Amino acid sequence: MAMDGYRGFLVLLVSALLVGFLSVIFTLVWVLHYRGGLGWDGTELEFNWHPVLMVTGFVFIQGIAIIVYRLPWTWKCSKLLMKSIHAGLNAVAAILAIISLVAVFENRNFSNKTHLYSLHGWIGLTVVILYVLQLLLGFFVFLLPWAPLSLRAALMPIHVYSGLLLFGTAIVTTLTGVTEKLFFVLKDPAYSTFPPEGVFANILGLLILVFGALIFWIVTRPQWKRPKEPNSTLFQPNGGTTEREEGSMATSYGHNMDKSDSELNSEAAARKRNLALDEAVQRSTM
Amino acid sequence: MAMDGYRGFLVLLVSALLVGFLSVIFTLVWVLHYRGGLGWDGTELEFNWHPVLMVTGFVFIQGIAIIVYRLPWTWKCSKLLMKSIHAGLNAVAAILAIISLVAVFENRNFSNKTHLYSLHGWIGLTVVILYVLQLLLGFFVFLLPWAPLSLRAALMPIHVYSGLLLFGTAIVTTLTGVTEKLFFVLKDPAYSTFPPEGVFANILGLLILVFGALIFWIVTRPQWKRPKEPNSTLFQPNGGTTEREEGSMATSYGHNMDKSDSELNSEAAARKRNLALDEAVQRSTM
Repeated sequence: MAMDGYRGFLVLLVSALLVGFLSVIFTLVWVLHYRGGLGWDGTELEFNWHPVLMVTGFVFIQGIAIIVYRLPWTWKCSKLLMKSIHAGLNAVAAILAIISLVAVFENRNFSNKTHLYSLHGWIGLTVVILYVLQLLLGFFVFLLPWAPLSLRAALMPIHVYSGLLLFGTAIVTTLTGVTEKLFFVLKDPAYSTFPPEGVFANILGLLILVFGALIFWIVTRPQWKRPKEPNSTLFQPNGGTTEREEGSMATSYGHNMDKSDSELNSEAAARKRNLALDEAVQRSTM
Repeated sequence: MAMDGYRGFLVLLVSALLVGFLSVIFTLVWVLHYRGGLGWDGTELEFNWHPVLMVTGFVFIQGIAIIVYRLPWTWKCSKLLMKSIHAGLNAVAAILAIISLVAVFENRNFSNKTHLYSLHGWIGLTVVILYVLQLLLGFFVFLLPWAPLSLRAALMPIHVYSGLLLFGTAIVTTLTGVTEKLFFVLKDPAYSTFPPEGVFANILGLLILVFGALIFWIVTRPQWKRPKEPNSTLFQPNGGTTEREEGSMATSYGHNMDKSDSELNSEAAARKRNLALDEAVQRSTM
């Protein structure tokens, strides 16, 4: 990566970290200053863990997990290490999201409120379930060493697409959550009279959106992609496959096979396999 | 495109059209059956044009405009024709969005309600303004023939990124709109008691989300990309530029220069210019 590209990347990364961090701070200030604080007693104080843990885990940490392969100073680290960090961050995000759901369910039970009636609840629960499935799939197919290369190649475009879609949908869900909370609690003075809490939480919503936009920019710049492992060229003797997978979304973990994977094979075997992959990838995208 | 790929594309396209069309129908049923119908008299009947026009224009038509280059039967049409269709659909979407905003503003004035206090209003107005700017920029830079190739090359990755981001944000905004409307109007019976209107509008929200996911899948499959114009190879003598732009987001209008553009230049001049483009594109992404 040229010096100029590196500086550009750093500016974007620092902006994303700053905006993400600010989102978490704003959420904390919202619940501590405007919503009575935090607790684990079934009351609204327990509910308040819901936005805090979701913005911290399901927005901020999930966003960082998505771009972790793109940090240039990690390009000398092994792919396995980076995969572990990617999986680890996503696991932390999933755990925080689940604890955050427990907080809501306990609060609803405690106050005899109905569960899951709103669009926010429907989308949110679906996203968390799909996120956990994506995490398990990623763990078994891409992190553990046993999945055949053909399966990895077939699932990678889907993994990348699902990851970005889930992140985007997490943001959709968060903003519907902010919206429903504000309409629910801001009665006197009403949300429509621009009370400080309403304006403050609106700004929080914008911050979350900007964070998402920054992550989306970083992860779709082809020049900030982790370079191919030296041996992975073995798997790209025919230009077609490379280009097809390459363009798949230009995210960092697009199609590079592990060095360790590729060392298992002779070049001739790899070339043969590549034709099969080629078909498998094409089938997978229909 | 192989026969198999073509069938896969058709299945996705028909699904997207179906889900998009259903979203429009659901919105119509919502306002006609549950919200008293449509009118242009300042009352809630005028407000009701807001969701109808937004889902029709700013979600459905905008989504179709994004994938229009990917329809295989249009690949024999000129790039200029396809650009005109892309721009035309986006212009229709923008006009419907603006009329839709007029409906809200007139309704708010009529009932002495305050404007733009909610997160939905803040994000929504911003997105419509940015969308109109994106449309104007696209018109002057990519549709009119006068912009230099270096400018087109520098702006294309930004155009593609902004287009997808605006579409995603349009969906975010729509779902916050559905959420705030339901919390606003469903008082007796309350939203939390699962009234038919609440469940119906939740399903509408899910349909809009699925429509967005289908468009996002279609537009990020590299194998469904409009093939390069025959002459555009002139502009890719050094592999670096091609790969960088290629991966940029794998959307159909990624980086192909017009046949007409390329015909203006000799191969030698094109090669020289390409180095400049190379730098310009890199600068633009920082």
